[in-house]
This record gives sequence, C-alpha cells and structure tokens, in this order.
Amino acid sequence: MNISSLENPHIKSAVKLRDSSSRRRELEQFFLEGARLCADAFESGYRPLRCFVTARARERYGEGLAPMLAATESVYDIPPALAKKLGDTESPQGVFAVFCLPSAKNAALFWSGRGKYLALENLQDPANLGAIARTAEALGADGLLVSGGCDRFHPKALRASMGALLRIPLLQADELSEELHRARALGLPILAAVPEAAALPLTALPLTGGAVVLIGNEGAGLSAPALSACTARVTIPMRGRAESLNAAAAATILLWEMMRE
Amino acid sequence: MNISSLENPHIKSAVKLRDSSSRRRELEQFFLEGARLCADAFESGYRPLRCFVTARARERYGEGLAPMLAATESVYDIPPALAKKLGDTESPQGVFAVFCLPSAKNAALFWSGRGKYLALENLQDPANLGAIARTAEALGADGLLVSGGCDRFHPKALRASMGALLRIPLLQADELSEELHRARALGLPILAAVPEAAALPLTALPLTGGAVVLIGNEGAGLSAPALSACTARVTIPMRGRAESLNAAAAATILLWEMMRE
Repeated sequence: MNISSLENPHIKSAVKLRDSSSRRRELEQFFLEGARLCADAFESGYRPLRCFVTARARERYGEGLAPMLAATESVYDIPPALAKKLGDTESPQGVFAVFCLPSAKNAALFWSGRGKYLALENLQDPANLGAIARTAEALGADGLLVSGGCDRFHPKALRASMGALLRIPLLQADELSEELHRARALGLPILAAVPEAAALPLTALPLTGGAVVLIGNEGAGLSAPALSACTARVTIPMRGRAESLNAAAAATILLWEMMRE
Repeated sequence: MNISSLENPHIKSAVKLRDSSSRRRELEQFFLEGARLCADAFESGYRPLRCFVTARARERYGEGLAPMLAATESVYDIPPALAKKLGDTESPQGVFAVFCLPSAKNAALFWSGRGKYLALENLQDPANLGAIARTAEALGADGLLVSGGCDRFHPKALRASMGALLRIPLLQADELSEELHRARALGLPILAAVPEAAALPLTALPLTGGAVVLIGNEGAGLSAPALSACTARVTIPMRGRAESLNAAAAATILLWEMMRE
C-alpha cells in the first residue's frame, strides 16, 4: 500500500511517537529509523506493527529487512520526500517502523546478587544515555536502571546506542529508591558517584564482586532521596579542573572499573 | 562600531573561519562563540583580534568579558538577528571573537620521558575530539597529539571540550610517524589501541610509568604507517558485542588506565 502525505493518520501517529515520550508511554509503542536498527529491534524480539519504506530502501536493504517485513502487520511504501520528513537524519535510509513496547520487566528478576549495574537518575541528554548503554553492553554490564530523564526509546538515544538500548537488560523505574532498596536487600553495595574530593576514591573500593553505581543528572547531580538510598559515596580522582568529566565519560570509567579484572 | 549586515567583510571573514579548517590554517586565526569560551581563550593566552557582541550580551556578560574586550583590537556591536546567523547554537549568547592561532609548539619540548599522552590519528567527529580533550584534561594527561582528521579549532570540538582544547598541551602533527619516533627515542612505549582479541589486554601492561596510546579513525582504525611506528598493540577486553566501543569511550578507558594509581 502507498502513502504519500504527511496527513495520513498512520504517518501522523508515527511522528507523534517519534517526538513525544508521553505518547510512547500512552500507546506503548515506539518509532525507529534505519535499516540496521529496525532489523536489530526485530531480531531482539520487538514486534513491528507498521513499516514505512521507500522503493530505494527495498532495493538496498531488502534482503536484510525481509524477515522483519514478513512479520509486520502493515507495510507501506512511501516516496523519498516523505522519508525526508519522517527522518531525523540528513540523508535518511528510507526505513521506518513502529514497534510495540516490551511488557514491563519483573523488577525482582532484574537484580542478581553479584551483578554489576549502572543506575541513571534524571539523565537529560539522549546522546549521553545512548553512549552509556553502548559502553555498558560492550563491557558486559549486567543491567542498566533508568529513572526519570529522557526515555530509552528516544530516537537520538536509540541511534547513539547503536541498538544497545534494545538489547541490554534495562529496567525503567518510577520509584528509584524502591529499586535501590531491592538491590540492597540482595547484599549489593549501592555507590553514589559524586564529584566530591571527600568521597572514597573509586580505586579504593572492591567493585568486582557486584555493585550498583548510581549517576545523576548532568547539571544537578543526584537527588537527596537517591543519595540517602546509597551505601557509600565514590568519586573519580581528577587532577585537572574539577568537576569537568561529563556524564558519559564518568559512566565509562565507573563501568570499566566494575568490569576490570 | 556597529555592524548589521552579513555582507560586512569582517563578518564574512569570521564565518569562513568558523566553517573552514583550511581557512583557519591559511589565516592562522580561529573563531569562537560563547561568553565563557571566549573569556577562557583570552585567559589561556590567545590574542583576540576582533569581537562581535550584542547589547544584551554586554549587559549579561560585560563584567566577565571586560578584560578580553579591553585587549581586543576591534570590538563591534551587532544586532540579535546577526548573532543568530553567526551562532552555531539554537540560542546564541551573542558573544563571538576571532583569535590568532598560537605559534606552533616546539615538538621537542612537548614530549617528556615519563609523560602520559594520547595520540589521535584522523579522528573525524569534532564532538569526539572535544569530549576526549575534556576527559584528558580532567584526568591530568600530559598532552594530546592530533594528526589529521578534524582540527582542534573546529567550533563543535571547542564547545564539546568546554575549552579544554584551548588549555591542554596539544601538538598538531603533520607527520605522525616522525613524532612517534621522537617519543620512542625518549623511551616511551607507543601503544596502538586496536579492537583485536589477540592484542595485549590493557590491564596486562604497566602504563603508569609513561606511555603514548594511539587511537585511530572511528571507522578505519589506525593506518599501516602508524601501526608500524608502535611498540605494542593493546586492546580493551570486551564481553558484549565486538568492536562496539566508540572512539570517545575507548579513549576514556585508555586515559583512565594510564592515570590510575
């Protein structure tokens, strides 16, 4: 079937999912752009509801997309001009899809007693969230806890993560303190990462037996309730200008130090 | 003095410096946006040739900018509409300046026998270059060697670095191998960072006595001549999907491991 207008209700719905986090929650769906990302999502078990593809994309990526397209309820052909408007990038590949959100994970199953976890409170920048998820997956972290801030299905976050946000064990928590207490009950140390010289230096802690490291908002840091749910404060020793590591660089060092043998 | 048109020759020249790396080399000047970055550059010893400021910026940032404006050869007042066109950001602060490039550093003075250096070959993404410089400064690296790829005065790189690119000891090398041999002659190990499971794991090497770690292009990695100038190949052990650390995350881990005590 062909769609050529931005006014088509399926297109309008897809654009809303692309641009609005509350819409994603409401419909329990998310929007994805790019041949590789869409195929990755399908292979990771996400169910595609609708796909929008250009003729050129069918030619170029047809083979890789075939299993996903076969499993999609409705596939629509769109012209390049419409792909340009749907796309978030300079030269879109012409492959877009709407997927169902996964059913919420059972939080109790997420945590394990010797696991290595990163928890993020109110992270604002989707590029930071994506970069952190990519590093967490590459280094083999056991899971990512996300509370507040930008959501994991933000198109920029998904792209920056190279799909890691679709694959890594991830818990989106409304009540951060509750989750941290659940992890504490399993014996995991809960470490607040803070830019304070008085906190324990990262290298003074045994992290390899499992831990949750908590990182706060880029500007405001961690909230008081989050801090009070932690068992210790930890810091990355710096020699240059103070407080000048960005959230993604700090997360990378904390993850590395947890996974380092 | 007032300027209100994009056609003004000083404005045209500034825009060219903003957009073109070869123009920056040719005129030995660079363009900077933002109150904090411009003041930082002045305090770091860069000489401002021309400044362009809006009335609102004078009001808001006047105090912080006063020393720089007093030292600038020509200061021009510009209207908000022109600031919007000069600016690279959504809502520009209305402060712009053209600075002289520093005179080329004496390469022999850059290297020291027990220093900790990061070298970058053909890094393409200015945001990566900026993020890496920021982390290198925060962790206290002794210097950054940049060869090919995007240049240190790219506006996006400068902004991502929070000014670190203006402050950190930095050598821009036309002949990478020559520089690496100079460092080798001082007894520094030159380590090529590669995504190869057969390379030495990062944690198996003593890095704290000084080293040069070399990182390649985001897609193509290191060139053959660069690899052959190295004394060993080193890799970051990964547990997730292979080759999935981005250049900035890899640089962060390598820097941290060099500086770690």
